[in-house]
Amino acid sequence: MSKIVSSKKDFSKWYTSILTEADLVDYGLVKGTIVFKPYAWKIWTNIQKELDKELKKLGVENCCFPLMIPYSEFKREAKHVEGFAPELFRITKIGDKELSDDLVVRPTSEISFCKYFSSNSKSYNDLPMKLNQWCNVFRVEKNTRPFLRTSEFFWQETHAIFETKKEAQQFALDFIRVYEKFLKETLCIPVIVGEKTEYERFAGASNTYTIEALMKDGQALQSGTSHFLDQNFSKNFDIKYQTKDNSFDYVYQTSHGVSTRLIGALIMTHSDDNGLVLPSKIAPFQIVVITDDVDNFNKTIKPTLDSMNHIDYKVDSTNKSLGIRIGKYEVMGVPLQFIIGRKEMEEKTVTFYNRVLKEKNSIKLEQLNKEWIDKTLSNLDKTLYDNASKFLNDSIVEVNNIEEFKKAINDKKMVLAYWSGSQEDEKKLKELTQATTRCISWTKKSEKDKKCFFTNKPNAQLVYFARSY
Amino acid sequence: MSKIVSSKKDFSKWYTSILTEADLVDYGLVKGTIVFKPYAWKIWTNIQKELDKELKKLGVENCCFPLMIPYSEFKREAKHVEGFAPELFRITKIGDKELSDDLVVRPTSEISFCKYFSSNSKSYNDLPMKLNQWCNVFRVEKNTRPFLRTSEFFWQETHAIFETKKEAQQFALDFIRVYEKFLKETLCIPVIVGEKTEYERFAGASNTYTIEALMKDGQALQSGTSHFLDQNFSKNFDIKYQTKDNSFDYVYQTSHGVSTRLIGALIMTHSDDNGLVLPSKIAPFQIVVITDDVDNFNKTIKPTLDSMNHIDYKVDSTNKSLGIRIGKYEVMGVPLQFIIGRKEMEEKTVTFYNRVLKEKNSIKLEQLNKEWIDKTLSNLDKTLYDNASKFLNDSIVEVNNIEEFKKAINDKKMVLAYWSGSQEDEKKLKELTQATTRCISWTKKSEKDKKCFFTNKPNAQLVYFARSY
Repeated sequence: MSKIVSSKKDFSKWYTSILTEADLVDYGLVKGTIVFKPYAWKIWTNIQKELDKELKKLGVENCCFPLMIPYSEFKREAKHVEGFAPELFRITKIGDKELSDDLVVRPTSEISFCKYFSSNSKSYNDLPMKLNQWCNVFRVEKNTRPFLRTSEFFWQETHAIFETKKEAQQFALDFIRVYEKFLKETLCIPVIVGEKTEYERFAGASNTYTIEALMKDGQALQSGTSHFLDQNFSKNFDIKYQTKDNSFDYVYQTSHGVSTRLIGALIMTHSDDNGLVLPSKIAPFQIVVITDDVDNFNKTIKPTLDSMNHIDYKVDSTNKSLGIRIGKYEVMGVPLQFIIGRKEMEEKTVTFYNRVLKEKNSIKLEQLNKEWIDKTLSNLDKTLYDNASKFLNDSIVEVNNIEEFKKAINDKKMVLAYWSGSQEDEKKLKELTQATTRCISWTKKSEKDKKCFFTNKPNAQLVYFARSY
Repeated sequence: MSKIVSSKKDFSKWYTSILTEADLVDYGLVKGTIVFKPYAWKIWTNIQKELDKELKKLGVENCCFPLMIPYSEFKREAKHVEGFAPELFRITKIGDKELSDDLVVRPTSEISFCKYFSSNSKSYNDLPMKLNQWCNVFRVEKNTRPFLRTSEFFWQETHAIFETKKEAQQFALDFIRVYEKFLKETLCIPVIVGEKTEYERFAGASNTYTIEALMKDGQALQSGTSHFLDQNFSKNFDIKYQTKDNSFDYVYQTSHGVSTRLIGALIMTHSDDNGLVLPSKIAPFQIVVITDDVDNFNKTIKPTLDSMNHIDYKVDSTNKSLGIRIGKYEVMGVPLQFIIGRKEMEEKTVTFYNRVLKEKNSIKLEQLNKEWIDKTLSNLDKTLYDNASKFLNDSIVEVNNIEEFKKAINDKKMVLAYWSGSQEDEKKLKELTQATTRCISWTKKSEKDKKCFFTNKPNAQLVYFARSY
């Protein structure tokens, strides 16, 4: 029946088998690109819809910037171009005509937003300005995996400018908390929140805040970032404004993003050897009704479902066997299945199947009401989050020396350790263990005068390490 | 006050002044591209939301394909590549490395969909397959104007495959009727529906159906197209499926699209010398409340507005003068303004301003309920449609010879005339008059044995002509 590979045997093949069997993606014509089939695109659309509400609450407005950026503009911020140059897709021809200034297919849009801010923020009255776009971005990648690392991916990128450093820093902090809450409450994914070390920071940022999720194979997945750009870009792109006291100053800037990686995070956090598992809030449909008697469904359950605005459902009355149909929606991770066969009709019951609890049970038709559905889905989401939280907490190991570090990483754990290494040290550690710093801990406060487990240098901070996607 | 140029004096500058004054666009860094500012992007988002509902009713599912297409694949359909080659943005480098096979930034996605269909439609059970994507497409343009003709634009492209020629042809016809209805009912724009002549047809199609709107300057705007592709692509891309009787056949294919041109159509159909005018269903907000006493608004009108799911509103309590605020929303085309000053508060009334009727009036607070708002907005939309219909009908002139034709075109009319010219004749006529065939009439049936007004050839058909965008 199901062709899902065992995740214990081969996690990577398990992941790929879910992509295929749950009908999520096809491979694109260009290496490293994917086609989002309707089921996957609906998941992304739902993520957009839910997160967009949160962005609105932060005062962010959606807009849309061109895909192409002149290469000459791109080169103005030195660290930024250094960070992206080898990954750029470059347009050098129009028809058969060579261009004098190449165009770059955006890997991110700081440059476009900077140029816009520079001409649209004249005075303190125009600040803050908080803009967002949902779009595709492009970075040439050698080792690609659908959703996790592809040469074209989708994301939201918010760019904001402020009068004061304090406001900008606060906004960068607020934003990472919004991401944390969104992953927790909507995607049922627990994360570690913290600050990136200099080595792992975004090219051009003064601080990068991150949320890090832990996948079932013990690898971390950076799931969202919020950057404090200080005046790094505003000085290069001349984003000046007239202050209240009639002088001029450069704005303070931030940028923030989550991407279609989140679909990868969903798969590797919740799914199992039976297939995909989806939280109810972003499932393309929360309920599938499997029945051979649509009339009966229309008379009984349909009015209830139709009255629930937040519920999408699908009715499958195809002539395939019940077993095949049930198996299909199991693999697709539909949270709830309602099965109405001859037995159920006679007994005026519905058999329901809960994808998370893997529980098949019967309920009387008259008890199947809005409250029951909402409660069942919300319990299902809670179970997902609790399971993932337990896994994350059980996976964190505190270590004091490199031997313990190596053992923990080889045991597929996330490591918490005192660190005060240099960029060079981070490189060395990565070569030794394939693990990288994920973030400087915010929740576990460092004790004073601790020494780095790797370099023995003083004034170390508590840092999370893991192998990562 | 308002910097809107008179449309009678200079239509083109009038259009540009609306783009600026209503805060719709900024110019991009690359020639021929634009930034959609939040107000314009919200209009497009609303168009998407409303049209998407109609596409779902046609059984169309959203998905997402990669932006880049290998040039080698692009060249497989001869007419298609001929139609697009000079307009293509070509990626030839990754970082500093030359690519062996160039990549094309999609001008349309027939090729990507074809390759997908070819590997995903194995049997008649998989048919019909109806997929849509909302995305950006790219065509190098020399003379660009925001929304009307830009090098990057946004659209929806639906691609569908069928078992039979009849089904595909019917779907292409059904689709153009959905577009017609959408423009009429949601955008309040009347259109002429018909079939393109061979010369004006999409590169690769066997039939192209079109909806043509008439702008206030007498120029036509092709506002949506629906193509019957026959087996032209399926034979080139080997899109075969197993038939019911176990043989193999090539699928019949269609494609369909409307784009951000529709925003241009909205402006040039409804707007006036006071600024933008928007139909209520796609306005970013239907109502603006101008008041200095937000508490009062919160206690009186807010609960009514909040209970209306289809209503977005904005409250402006800034310290600018009433006149400046009223003028601003006039230019932005907000359908209804509610003004609550001291006088209104004392009298327990609201002054409302209807952007379409340009009517300022007073209403008692207790009468301002849901029904009144819905009725007012629906009347406003009806007026927009009726005005545009009258303009379209008054603009159509029937002609019998080239002199009448020239006069009508110079008078900024749309011409209806008998035509049986060749592609060569269409070119000649265009050189003489700058007018092109818009479509073969469906509503006005041709009489038998009529002769072409231009070539005098027999068996002519009734065809619409106009200068066009």
